[in-house]
Amino acid sequence: MNSVTVIGLGAMGMGIAQSLRRRGLTVHACDIRLDAAKAFAADGGHAFTKPRDAVAGCDVVISVVVNASQTEEVLFSADGAAEAMSRGSVYVMCSTVAPSWSAALAERLSALGLLYLDAPISGGAAKAAEGRLTMMTSGAPAAYAKAQPALDAIAERVFRLGERPGAGSKVKIINQLLAGVHIAAAAEAMALGLREGVDPAQLYEVITHSAGNSWMFENRVPHVLDGDYTPRSAVDIFVKDLGLVLDTARATRFPLPLASTAHQMFQHASAAGHGREDDAAVIKVFPGIDLPRGPKG
Amino acid sequence: MNSVTVIGLGAMGMGIAQSLRRRGLTVHACDIRLDAAKAFAADGGHAFTKPRDAVAGCDVVISVVVNASQTEEVLFSADGAAEAMSRGSVYVMCSTVAPSWSAALAERLSALGLLYLDAPISGGAAKAAEGRLTMMTSGAPAAYAKAQPALDAIAERVFRLGERPGAGSKVKIINQLLAGVHIAAAAEAMALGLREGVDPAQLYEVITHSAGNSWMFENRVPHVLDGDYTPRSAVDIFVKDLGLVLDTARATRFPLPLASTAHQMFQHASAAGHGREDDAAVIKVFPGIDLPRGPKG
Repeated sequence: MNSVTVIGLGAMGMGIAQSLRRRGLTVHACDIRLDAAKAFAADGGHAFTKPRDAVAGCDVVISVVVNASQTEEVLFSADGAAEAMSRGSVYVMCSTVAPSWSAALAERLSALGLLYLDAPISGGAAKAAEGRLTMMTSGAPAAYAKAQPALDAIAERVFRLGERPGAGSKVKIINQLLAGVHIAAAAEAMALGLREGVDPAQLYEVITHSAGNSWMFENRVPHVLDGDYTPRSAVDIFVKDLGLVLDTARATRFPLPLASTAHQMFQHASAAGHGREDDAAVIKVFPGIDLPRGPKG
Repeated sequence: MNSVTVIGLGAMGMGIAQSLRRRGLTVHACDIRLDAAKAFAADGGHAFTKPRDAVAGCDVVISVVVNASQTEEVLFSADGAAEAMSRGSVYVMCSTVAPSWSAALAERLSALGLLYLDAPISGGAAKAAEGRLTMMTSGAPAAYAKAQPALDAIAERVFRLGERPGAGSKVKIINQLLAGVHIAAAAEAMALGLREGVDPAQLYEVITHSAGNSWMFENRVPHVLDGDYTPRSAVDIFVKDLGLVLDTARATRFPLPLASTAHQMFQHASAAGHGREDDAAVIKVFPGIDLPRGPKG
């Protein structure tokens, strides 16, 4: 393997493409925004806007788009990759999607003679740029055999969760359940502190050294303290992801009281106009408090 | 200061008493269960069952009982400590209580010429035994001046949150909001995984290396994996603590959607007969899954 296609050059896809290039691989970078693809290829590699063109000569195609609908577009639109990929090459699907949809996609690609890895990622833009992502993967041994050098270049940990596509997405969905609930809980805790007149910076300091801490509390509360809601990850991402969590559970009639409550909080924030702000903006659903203001506040 | 009274020799109080003794202080150990007090004093110190008797000759009295009602008993019952404490000595209140109740207690003790520290603790029995607790404290400088050597012996971090009693309890309450929500969220996530056929040990491994992790997920999920619900901290503790959280917010008409949902889950578990089991037993509220069984299961 010398050439890899990366489709979708957002914060995560760009980091993945850079990590592959650092390992000496030739990267076919594809984004519907030509500027994004060209900006990457200026330092090496090739820029494309159409998936159909980008996959030529590549045995590994990694897609890092927002959701299932964009993945459908990447694969099956008129300019899509599926028909253009060579038989026996592997499609590495890194988006957060419904596990059942991912499993079905594997079958559709298999019918075209293509391999598939269900491979959602976790870690954020900084880790993507460093080649230190966590991947939650499942798929056939042949798919791993083909994709492994690329996975090694972009991930610090590649969890292999079995041969059935969808198993990786299930674990990713459960991670998002926790991530979403923890962000909303961090907001609720900071909101109560503000309501009670507790100094928010001191509260952050105590909680991050106590049993109430979470990865998300530690990572997101600084955005609240800085009054900075520039989207690192947006409120609407959790409207989507917690929606996928609830859809998954609903399919087997399973109750998720905390996930559904957190989902309502993110929907509240989105309906109030904060959907494109950082997900920490879910704290804006709480009335009757004065949030810390940023430098521009 | 050479002698310190410790009232309440549960897992936390016992560890605190041991940490004080290790520092060369004489400990007056008091518990209504004479056996517990004697077991401690067998290795040094003195055993008491009545707070009134235990405080003689001690300028620092540390109470580590379950709640406000027991603290009332310790101080103001016929055998209570309040009348017997010498003027100018300090009462260090380590229980999780309503912040408003703690503030009122400071005034009642002040009327008797006694100093007060609002000083809830976090960290669990193991850290208590090592003298490495986290304390969330507030009170007058004179109270700190008197209590500091004792605090240094029992805590790794003593957060000083101002002079107003109740400020420490507010932060503790907010920590408990997060702790309770995170335990319930850990249960919900593991329950969904079991429902979806995900291997629970593998799920634990992935989540503890991903952004969905929390202190509580990491600490409590092993109890579920081991099928071991021996109470380290019980379901009913979170029925109480999340109840205090909700009472605090209700006093200013403040909404806490996640805390109230988690409280319902702990109440559900308690009403189903699991109140005295480990708090990880909140996972038993989820129907339609087979939990891992312990060695005795």
